[in-house]
Amino acid sequence: MSNVETIGSLGENESLKRTIARLNLSEHALVGPGDDSAVINAPDGRFVVTTDTLVEDHDFKLSWSTGYDLGWKAVASNIADVAAMGAVPTALVVALTAPSSTQISWLEAFADGLSDACTQLAPGCGVVGGDLAASEKVMISVAAHGSLEGREPVLRSGAQVGDILAVAGTLGRAAAGLALLQSGNTDAIAAYDDWVNLQRRPQPPVAAGVEAALAGATSMLDVSDGLAKDASRIAKASAVTLQIDPLMLQGFEAVIEEAARAIDANPGEWVIGGGEDHSLLATFPSQATLPRAFKAIGLVLPQGPAPVMLGASPLPESGWDSVTG
Amino acid sequence: MSNVETIGSLGENESLKRTIARLNLSEHALVGPGDDSAVINAPDGRFVVTTDTLVEDHDFKLSWSTGYDLGWKAVASNIADVAAMGAVPTALVVALTAPSSTQISWLEAFADGLSDACTQLAPGCGVVGGDLAASEKVMISVAAHGSLEGREPVLRSGAQVGDILAVAGTLGRAAAGLALLQSGNTDAIAAYDDWVNLQRRPQPPVAAGVEAALAGATSMLDVSDGLAKDASRIAKASAVTLQIDPLMLQGFEAVIEEAARAIDANPGEWVIGGGEDHSLLATFPSQATLPRAFKAIGLVLPQGPAPVMLGASPLPESGWDSVTG
Repeated sequence: MSNVETIGSLGENESLKRTIARLNLSEHALVGPGDDSAVINAPDGRFVVTTDTLVEDHDFKLSWSTGYDLGWKAVASNIADVAAMGAVPTALVVALTAPSSTQISWLEAFADGLSDACTQLAPGCGVVGGDLAASEKVMISVAAHGSLEGREPVLRSGAQVGDILAVAGTLGRAAAGLALLQSGNTDAIAAYDDWVNLQRRPQPPVAAGVEAALAGATSMLDVSDGLAKDASRIAKASAVTLQIDPLMLQGFEAVIEEAARAIDANPGEWVIGGGEDHSLLATFPSQATLPRAFKAIGLVLPQGPAPVMLGASPLPESGWDSVTG
Repeated sequence: MSNVETIGSLGENESLKRTIARLNLSEHALVGPGDDSAVINAPDGRFVVTTDTLVEDHDFKLSWSTGYDLGWKAVASNIADVAAMGAVPTALVVALTAPSSTQISWLEAFADGLSDACTQLAPGCGVVGGDLAASEKVMISVAAHGSLEGREPVLRSGAQVGDILAVAGTLGRAAAGLALLQSGNTDAIAAYDDWVNLQRRPQPPVAAGVEAALAGATSMLDVSDGLAKDASRIAKASAVTLQIDPLMLQGFEAVIEEAARAIDANPGEWVIGGGEDHSLLATFPSQATLPRAFKAIGLVLPQGPAPVMLGASPLPESGWDSVTG
């Protein structure tokens, strides 16, 4: 017997009680955690819902990310999908499975990460329910909800020929962070800890989702699997070709170029193929004023030989597949 | 290389596409699967949300349950929590993790189980989004949503002294099924396959949730962890004592008595401590007309020495803890 409190020694009820005590409340909850279900406001008579799961050793390593990091990341990756509809995140439910030997302090840090990510990335949003179960590996599954506030949702399928393609947020930085961690090069990790930290605690531009909707965005999604793969999703859903201007990616590459050199990597591949930045990729009518958070990177063309072109060349769909890796 | 198609050989996108094609649509979805989020109707300006997770070797064994069974069970266990608020289930999101060696036929059967459970237990409800990821073990996490249709939610905390305690659905049958499977007694399993099948594919009395709300239920929950444990949750939340009349449990015991005898078990323990029937336990004002699905099993007393009494004796909180087992 050890004196360290674990979720196994405390049991589900006590562990959940300690976790819930650390969570911030959703401003939109009429009934919060503790009953069979929560009850959430949906003032315009609709709600937005999405789900995303993080699996140990597939999506993260416990040696690279703290409980706090993972709580943050679970929130960030899900509310980015809410923002990508042009909605405001309102409420989350969180299912966590973890070994019963997990220390309660890890779980408390996880709750703090959930809480801080809500407060900092989507003020007013909070965790309204959850589930805790034993398993050999840590698995975090979140369902996130949002309000469209009377607006129409921005889908992937609305891009029109002649629209401007633009991105809000970073490209390639999370991939840089991952490559640095994988390199095991402790000097490089220390020197470029901003990218490592962004990998651990993504910073999706949540407010830019609503701004895009208000500016007339015709399509939008969250860049979770890499620019090439996610751009091709808009292209296919909208039956168009997206042409990315390679010159417009140079700024994204420049930021991570030094880190790439330190570990002999190619920053261009990170920008085009790297996932987990959780930026927003959107199309806007050519006469629209782009919201400040967005930077134009290309154009919408009639459907051509490839869904996505980088300049004059077809861009292969590289990127992350959550099953095959 | 094998010719059997697996989720690993097909990848996330193709596997999800095949799954989604088998799902029934939610009548309440304005935007269904395929975008960053779904958009669901919430006509009274609120929605109900809950989440529950099933973990391989903790909540189920793949040798005892098919993909179809698990799809069914994941829906049933979650919509019971929606029904327990007095709400009508409208939409689900489903996260599945499974080994990449999982055959696509298993995933298709899982989708059929999701679909059939929605159609049969909660017509109009459907799966509106999901996530598929690789992991060593199968894990199913669902978030279920519902509409209160303008009614107030029925919480755990509203039981009043003098109320009648009543249950809709079965007690102990799912525990009987589990004990039969654990016994390995193939003759007994074959003879009492009704209880085994109820364990695999629970039949929560979903419509009874709304009926209870309309009849004025003062508190309600879904009996997922056993009568003793779940009754104590109402008692604690309402600051009352629930007194269960042992005579009123005899009918529940009688049904599973023969199966208990076949494997030398105690049917009374199944009725009091067995989880996963996903019945509804509710309290009603003494003058209320109980809906037909409900059977009175006790009374609400002022808070006494124990949260739950069985006749004149305190009832210990046995039951299922999802962390400690």
